[in-house]
Amino acid sequence: MSDSASKGPSNWARWGEDDQRGTLNLITPEIVMGAAGLVRTGKVYSLTVPLETQGAQWPPRHKMWRTTEFTKNKVGRNSSGDALVMHSHSGTHIDALCHIWYDDRLYNGFDASEHMTSFGVTRNSIDNVPYLVGRGVLLDIAGWKGVDHLALGEPITADDFDACAAAQQVDIRPGDILLIRTGWINVCAVDRALFDSGEPGIDETTLPWLKEHDVAAVGADNLAVEVLDSIPPDDLPVHRIGIRDLGLYLMENLDFNAMAADRAYESLVVIAPLKITGGAGSPVNPIAIT
Amino acid sequence: MSDSASKGPSNWARWGEDDQRGTLNLITPEIVMGAAGLVRTGKVYSLTVPLETQGAQWPPRHKMWRTTEFTKNKVGRNSSGDALVMHSHSGTHIDALCHIWYDDRLYNGFDASEHMTSFGVTRNSIDNVPYLVGRGVLLDIAGWKGVDHLALGEPITADDFDACAAAQQVDIRPGDILLIRTGWINVCAVDRALFDSGEPGIDETTLPWLKEHDVAAVGADNLAVEVLDSIPPDDLPVHRIGIRDLGLYLMENLDFNAMAADRAYESLVVIAPLKITGGAGSPVNPIAIT
Amino acid sequence: MSDSASKGPSNWARWGEDDQRGTLNLITPEIVMGAAGLVRTGKVYSLTVPLETQGAQWPPRHKMWRTTEFTKNKVGRNSSGDALVMHSHSGTHIDALCHIWYDDRLYNGFDASEHMTSFGVTRNSIDNVPYLVGRGVLLDIAGWKGVDHLALGEPITADDFDACAAAQQVDIRPGDILLIRTGWINVCAVDRALFDSGEPGIDETTLPWLKEHDVAAVGADNLAVEVLDSIPPDDLPVHRIGIRDLGLYLMENLDFNAMAADRAYESLVVIAPLKITGGAGSPVNPIAIT
Amino acid sequence: MSDSASKGPSNWARWGEDDQRGTLNLITPEIVMGAAGLVRTGKVYSLTVPLETQGAQWPPRHKMWRTTEFTKNKVGRNSSGDALVMHSHSGTHIDALCHIWYDDRLYNGFDASEHMTSFGVTRNSIDNVPYLVGRGVLLDIAGWKGVDHLALGEPITADDFDACAAAQQVDIRPGDILLIRTGWINVCAVDRALFDSGEPGIDETTLPWLKEHDVAAVGADNLAVEVLDSIPPDDLPVHRIGIRDLGLYLMENLDFNAMAADRAYESLVVIAPLKITGGAGSPVNPIAIT
Repeated sequence: MSDSASKGPSNWARWGEDDQRGTLNLITPEIVMGAAGLVRTGKVYSLTVPLETQGAQWPPRHKMWRTTEFTKNKVGRNSSGDALVMHSHSGTHIDALCHIWYDDRLYNGFDASEHMTSFGVTRNSIDNVPYLVGRGVLLDIAGWKGVDHLALGEPITADDFDACAAAQQVDIRPGDILLIRTGWINVCAVDRALFDSGEPGIDETTLPWLKEHDVAAVGADNLAVEVLDSIPPDDLPVHRIGIRDLGLYLMENLDFNAMAADRAYESLVVIAPLKITGGAGSPVNPIAIT
Repeated sequence: MSDSASKGPSNWARWGEDDQRGTLNLITPEIVMGAAGLVRTGKVYSLTVPLETQGAQWPPRHKMWRTTEFTKNKVGRNSSGDALVMHSHSGTHIDALCHIWYDDRLYNGFDASEHMTSFGVTRNSIDNVPYLVGRGVLLDIAGWKGVDHLALGEPITADDFDACAAAQQVDIRPGDILLIRTGWINVCAVDRALFDSGEPGIDETTLPWLKEHDVAAVGADNLAVEVLDSIPPDDLPVHRIGIRDLGLYLMENLDFNAMAADRAYESLVVIAPLKITGGAGSPVNPIAIT
Repeated sequence: MSDSASKGPSNWARWGEDDQRGTLNLITPEIVMGAAGLVRTGKVYSLTVPLETQGAQWPPRHKMWRTTEFTKNKVGRNSSGDALVMHSHSGTHIDALCHIWYDDRLYNGFDASEHMTSFGVTRNSIDNVPYLVGRGVLLDIAGWKGVDHLALGEPITADDFDACAAAQQVDIRPGDILLIRTGWINVCAVDRALFDSGEPGIDETTLPWLKEHDVAAVGADNLAVEVLDSIPPDDLPVHRIGIRDLGLYLMENLDFNAMAADRAYESLVVIAPLKITGGAGSPVNPIAIT
Repeated sequence: MSDSASKGPSNWARWGEDDQRGTLNLITPEIVMGAAGLVRTGKVYSLTVPLETQGAQWPPRHKMWRTTEFTKNKVGRNSSGDALVMHSHSGTHIDALCHIWYDDRLYNGFDASEHMTSFGVTRNSIDNVPYLVGRGVLLDIAGWKGVDHLALGEPITADDFDACAAAQQVDIRPGDILLIRTGWINVCAVDRALFDSGEPGIDETTLPWLKEHDVAAVGADNLAVEVLDSIPPDDLPVHRIGIRDLGLYLMENLDFNAMAADRAYESLVVIAPLKITGGAGSPVNPIAIT
C-alpha cells in the first residue's frame, strides 16, 4: 500500500481538480467518428453474460434475485413485471471510479470519509459516466496462445499485450476500449468451483502500459479483470491503482467468444451504464459493432 | 377487447411460429451499416433519465431502492457497492414482448398460462433482445407544435407523424427506431403530481401506421408512450396491440431535450437491455450518436 | 439540541459503561412472573397491523415489497415462498437504541462515527434485545377523552398519563411496557393523507415522567409515538431524548382497538424482535395475553 | 404421492370447509391459561438464531441481504435504518399452511391454481395466524440419546417421542407446541457443509402420532423439521402430509440449547408471525417462558 498520493502512474489533476470522469476524458468526438467508421458489415455483438441468479458474480456477494409478478385474468388485458434485487456489480458490469480506493482518498484526491454515504457516493459515482463509446480493440490472448482458456493464476503482462497486438496486426491508440479475452468465462459453465476460486488476468506490469497508451477502459471475460490466485485475494493492484490512481474504467464478466471466432479485433463499442445516482457501478450489456 | 387472434394489425407468424423477437427481426445488417453511416460529428447523447428513488416511474409501482455499502478502514484498500432493488420497468426502460397480453395469449400466440411463472417468463422475455441497433428518427412533436410540452391527454396521431416528419424533412423507413418527443419529461421535475396523473402520447391511429411503416421500436419521453387521461387508465391500446399483436418494442421515460436542441433527427441508436433471463423488461440507457 | 452528554433525564452509565440494552435492564424475572400472573382468561391479542405494501409506514420511506413465487406442477408436490423487501421499521415495529442519536454519540456514549457502518451497527443494535416480556399497561387516552381518535397535533402530557391511569384505576410500575392508545391508527384506513401528515402523541413533558416511573418501553398506535405537527418534523424530541439519553424502547403502529374494547388495561406482553444482526430495528407482532 | 384427498391422516373439513387456520384451532383460552400457569421462575428464552446473511437458511435459497443506511451529520440529530431483503422463510421461521401442497390442492381442499398468485396467496396465508400461544413441550432427543447432536439422516420416530417423553416425565396434550431438539443447529457453526447437506429429524411414523395427539405445531432445531438424507430431497413427507393434510404448523431453525441445559421441558410458548398479507411464511423469534 502507498501513501495518499500515488507514487506510481497517476492521472490525478490531469483533467482538473474537480474531474470525476477520469479516462472518459480521453474519448473525443473524433475518436467516436473514427470508431463509427470501423463499421463495415453491420454485424452486432452483445458482450454480456446472462443476468440471473446463478450467473457469474463475485463469489462473496449476494446472488441476484429476480421474481416475476403477473396478473392472471382469464379474459382481458394482463401484465407482467419483475422485482429485481441485485448488487450493482452483478453479472457483466462496469466499476465506477468510487468503487475502490485506499488511504481514504478516492480518484483525483476526493476525501472518502466525506463522500462515501449509505445513500450514495457523492464523488466519482457511475452517473458521471453517461456512456463509453469509441474504438474497441479485442486482444484475444487465449486465441493467440492457442488455448481454450488461460489457467488459474496465469498472468497477462504488458509484453503479452504488445505481442498479441502485433500478432493480430492491431495497434492501441489513445481513448481505446481494450477488450481482453482470457477464455475464462467458458469455465463458469463447466467448472463453477474453479471459476470462483481465482482467474487468469492482467498483472501489475500492465498499469504503466495502460497509462502510457492512454487506454480509456479495460473489459475482460473474467470476474475482476486482473489475475487472482484466490478469491477474495490479498490485494487487487489493478483495481487499486487502475481505478483510484489512473481513473481507469474496468468492466468484468464480458463474453468475447463470438467476436474472437470472427477475428473482429476492431469495432465500434458502446457501453451504456444505468444512470444510478450515486451508484458505485452498474450492470451493462456492452455492444460491439463491426 | 378482442378474441384470441387479433382482428387488427398483427405480425403473428410473420417470422415463424417460434419467433420470440418480433419487430427486432426488421433490423438487418444493412440497416445497421446505414445507421453507422449517419455518424458525422461524433457527438453522443445519453437518452436516459436518472435512475433513482424519486425518478420517473409508473406511479402504482414501488420506487427504486438503492443503498450503498462501503468499508471504512482508515488505511489500506476500501471498496463500495450498492444493493439495488427495483422493478424491471424502473426509470428509462424497454418493455419485453411478454409485458402485456390479452385473452391468455402472448405475442405470436404463446399460451400465457403455460409460460408465465413467478420464476420468470418462458416466452418473449427480454433476454431474447440482445440489442436494438439501427437508425433512430426523432420526431420532435413538441418542437413542431412550438410548445414546451404537449398537454395532459393530448393525442399524437398518425397524421401528426406524417406532418412532423415532413416538417423535419425526414422519412420513416423499415426497421427504424422511432423517438417521439412530447416534452412531457420536463413536467416530472416541475409538477410531479401532473406528471403522474396522465400524459400526452401516441393514440390508436398510429398502430396501423407503425405496422405499415414497419417501425422496429418506439421510444417516448413519457411514462407509457401512449396518451393517457388518467393513471392507471382503463385501457392501454398501444401496449395491448403494439406489444401483443405487432410484437413491437416500446421504451419509456427517455429524454430527447439535448437531441432536439441540436435538431439531431437522424442518428445511430443503440439500445442494450440487460440480459435478464426470463425478465419482462429492463432498465436501459439508450445511446444516440450523430 | 444539547451537547454530547444530556443535560436532561439520562440513563447513561446506569447499567455499566458497556451496556447496550438500556431500559430492558429494568425487566426482572420477578416482573415476568408477576405479568404471567395477570393471565386470567386466556384471551390473546395480536397488536400488529398488516405488513403490506400499502400498510402504515413512515411516509418518506420506501414501501414494503413482497412478491410470492411458487411452483406450478399439475401433479405432485409444489411450494410457495416470498421475496420480502422492506425497511426494518416497516409496519408495526420496534426501534433499536441505535436508531436515533445526536452530537455523534449513541445511547450510553458510544461513538456513532465508529459504530455506524453500512454492514450494520456495532453498538445498541436490535440483536441486543432478545425479547421484551413483562407487564403491559394500556392507557386508552382516546377512550378516556371519549373520542374515536385524538386530533392531528394533539399532545398527550405527563398529566394526561396520571389522569388516565387514575380513571382506569391502574398504576405504573418499574419495568412496565406502556401502551398508549390515541385511536390514530383508525385514521390510516379512512384518510391516508391525514394519517401521513402528522399525528397526536406524547410530548416532551412525558420524558421526565417516563424516567421517574422507569418505564421499559412505550408502544403507540401511530407512526412515531410522539406528537407531530408535520411529517417529516423539525425535531423528534421523544426519539432524541427517549432513545439516545434514556435508552428507552419505542414501538410504533400498534393496534389496541380490541384491547380497549375489552378494557384490558393490564396484560402479559411479549415483544419478540427478529434477531437481525447489527440491525437498527425490527418489525414485530406484539402479543398481549389477559 | 396420493390423489387429491389424502388417504392418510387428515384434518380437512374438521374445522369447517372455510377453515384456513388448521391446528391453530386446537389452542383454546383454557390451554393458554394453563400454559401461563407454567411460569414459575420468570426466566425467558429466545429460541431464534441470528437473522443474518450467513445464518441458517435452506441452501438453495438466496441469502438474506441487509444494508444499513444512516445519516452522518456531525452535529444534531441522526438516524439509521436498514434495507432488508429476505425470503419469508429465512433463519428461524414458521411455514404458512399454503407453503407446501400437492395435486393442486392446498390444505382443506382449496384450489392452488386459483389461490396462488405472484401478488400473494389468497388462502391459508400466514396472516391467518395472529399468534401461536400455548404449552410448549421440549423433547430433548439429543439429550435423551446422550449425544451432542443426532447424525445426518438419523430419523426420530413416534416411538422415540414416547420414550423421550417418558424419560423426561412429560406428557403430550392436545394443542401442545412440540419442540424437538436434535442438536443439529450446533453443526451450523462448526461444519456448514455438513449442516447444509441434510439433517436428522422426524420421520413419517410421527405423522399419525401428531394427528392422534392433536399437536398444534412442531418446531425443530434444523432446516426442515424432518429427516433428510440430502438437500434438496426427493420428498418432504412431513411437509407434504403435515402441512397440506393435517394443517399443522412447522417451524424451523430454532435453538433449544439454553432450555435443554435448564431441563425446561414445559413452558409458556409465544410465536408471533409477522402479519404478512398473503405471505407463505414468516421469520419469527419464538419465546418460551418458565
